[in-house]
Amino acid sequence: MERIPFEKLRAEFKRILIEAGVGDAKADRTAALFAENTRDGVYSHGLNRFSGFVGGIRSGKVDPDAEPTRVRALGALEQWDGNSGIGLVNAEFAMGRAIDLARENAMGCVGLRNTNHWMRPGAFGLQAADAGCIGICWTNTTVLMPPWGSANRRIGNNPMVICIPRKDGPVLLDMAMSQYSNGKLEVLQRRGESLPIAGGYDTDGNLTTDPGAILDSRRALPIGYWKGSGLALVLDILASVISDGDSTHEIGARPNETAVSQVYIAIDTSKLGDNADAKIDAIVTDFLGASPLEGVDSVRYPGEGMLAIRRDSLANGIPVDPDLWQQLCEM
Amino acid sequence: MERIPFEKLRAEFKRILIEAGVGDAKADRTAALFAENTRDGVYSHGLNRFSGFVGGIRSGKVDPDAEPTRVRALGALEQWDGNSGIGLVNAEFAMGRAIDLARENAMGCVGLRNTNHWMRPGAFGLQAADAGCIGICWTNTTVLMPPWGSANRRIGNNPMVICIPRKDGPVLLDMAMSQYSNGKLEVLQRRGESLPIAGGYDTDGNLTTDPGAILDSRRALPIGYWKGSGLALVLDILASVISDGDSTHEIGARPNETAVSQVYIAIDTSKLGDNADAKIDAIVTDFLGASPLEGVDSVRYPGEGMLAIRRDSLANGIPVDPDLWQQLCEM
Repeated sequence: MERIPFEKLRAEFKRILIEAGVGDAKADRTAALFAENTRDGVYSHGLNRFSGFVGGIRSGKVDPDAEPTRVRALGALEQWDGNSGIGLVNAEFAMGRAIDLARENAMGCVGLRNTNHWMRPGAFGLQAADAGCIGICWTNTTVLMPPWGSANRRIGNNPMVICIPRKDGPVLLDMAMSQYSNGKLEVLQRRGESLPIAGGYDTDGNLTTDPGAILDSRRALPIGYWKGSGLALVLDILASVISDGDSTHEIGARPNETAVSQVYIAIDTSKLGDNADAKIDAIVTDFLGASPLEGVDSVRYPGEGMLAIRRDSLANGIPVDPDLWQQLCEM
Repeated sequence: MERIPFEKLRAEFKRILIEAGVGDAKADRTAALFAENTRDGVYSHGLNRFSGFVGGIRSGKVDPDAEPTRVRALGALEQWDGNSGIGLVNAEFAMGRAIDLARENAMGCVGLRNTNHWMRPGAFGLQAADAGCIGICWTNTTVLMPPWGSANRRIGNNPMVICIPRKDGPVLLDMAMSQYSNGKLEVLQRRGESLPIAGGYDTDGNLTTDPGAILDSRRALPIGYWKGSGLALVLDILASVISDGDSTHEIGARPNETAVSQVYIAIDTSKLGDNADAKIDAIVTDFLGASPLEGVDSVRYPGEGMLAIRRDSLANGIPVDPDLWQQLCEM
């Protein structure tokens, strides 16, 4: 692994985006988000995914000039159309708008339709936390999993984020409804590693820890079996209804994953009482007080590992595959 | 199993509640909810739990005269204090208030603190769906599970509901963050049945399908391992912060589970576009189109099985354990 400074990676991303025809402001934010995702260890939706993302712009799948437009303003809830724009920029806009609504109403919600892949969901939870808000968001996806009781793919893995501001580092739950995200399966396959627990079925219908076998069969296991299957279904319904946008079965009928539907919720914790910060801290402190099992270093809250990776990336440079970095510099 | 007509069960519940000192209006709603839970097959929080519930009133744990009071009105979000009242009545009130707020703001949210066990979470999702709203609600609980990586119980199983109105029957996801709820483990233990998949650890730290062994070790398995552990943690933080109420570690420090914190969200689907009903129906239809695996009767959406049980209960009477029914009649 080579180590590249954050600002150098960000500048490379921006240069390439500008050359691909993205305007300065959008290129700046898109490059920042891709660099931050890589910095925080989310390689599957950072450097590893960047050339594919640029391909989407060049092929016309993503319209780099599109701006989101408001469809309905309903008080604490608004519906917006992403107009096939850059998913990351639309997402940042939508969470920003949810935060604005939360300033007025304590809670704000934005349904965003017709947008593109937002890469790392957690980025937009962190955006809310940086603004002192609880951030909740989720997306639907193309068909990626069978419902419980079937081998036919019908549901998305519909990643969901719940992020809670905290002075010593936010609590960031960022999870797909499959036991492992597709991005994670791809990263482990690339490294030749097995999953620690079964994450899906092989093409013979047997549970397996081989990430490649699950990618081949396209039968990822939902978290909690029937529970994750049901949760993926309802998250798709909510995203589609709240945004008045397409659902997984409509997205899956197209050759590429386009026009996904997303929900952004912000809650302004400063309005909720004088004790919110202390409450959050006390809960996390109690959680961390659980004794680790033999062989476990420590019990960690969601997002804790990410912050450690971020500190290391900023101090020592972001670890990147030398071949991928070389390819990026030549793009 | 004996079959008892719904109205007879409801009337028995009400008689006993009145005799325990509950006022007519609250006894009526509490009896209705207990009878509906039993009718819908949620025996763990219907008839099976009723005598324990009455014990809570007689012991003073639950104050049958308490009314919820508003702590803060913040626009689309309100905070209420349940004043140690009847959990089911407080819950019905809080979801009703969230629905009122959704009529004005498209989305409404109520944080309810200092309330008691609501029995079946799904009841309040169904209440929202009956009013044409999406209903989302969750509760924190006393400590019931170890976080991932530990054997020390520190987190609740924090049941969560997402209910979506639909003309042919709502989609009702009602799930604890443990693979099996405590209520389910108790029902299967009573019947001498094993779990279909491992649901926790025995006292030796081995995964087991024996419901009694999991109740003994008190190490239930979170859904999706680390994911359900993280989700339980963040649901507790959200419940505690949004309601300005107690969190699991505070509840767990008391001898009984009292003063829990809950969140109720309603979204008025009639405001979200002309297509919401058709969208929901199309998604469910597509989901049900997945071919069942060999040995599986059919793929079912969350809540589908419940509706079948309800129809049977209403047509043929509610199946009840004759001993429990006898005990009820003698209460």
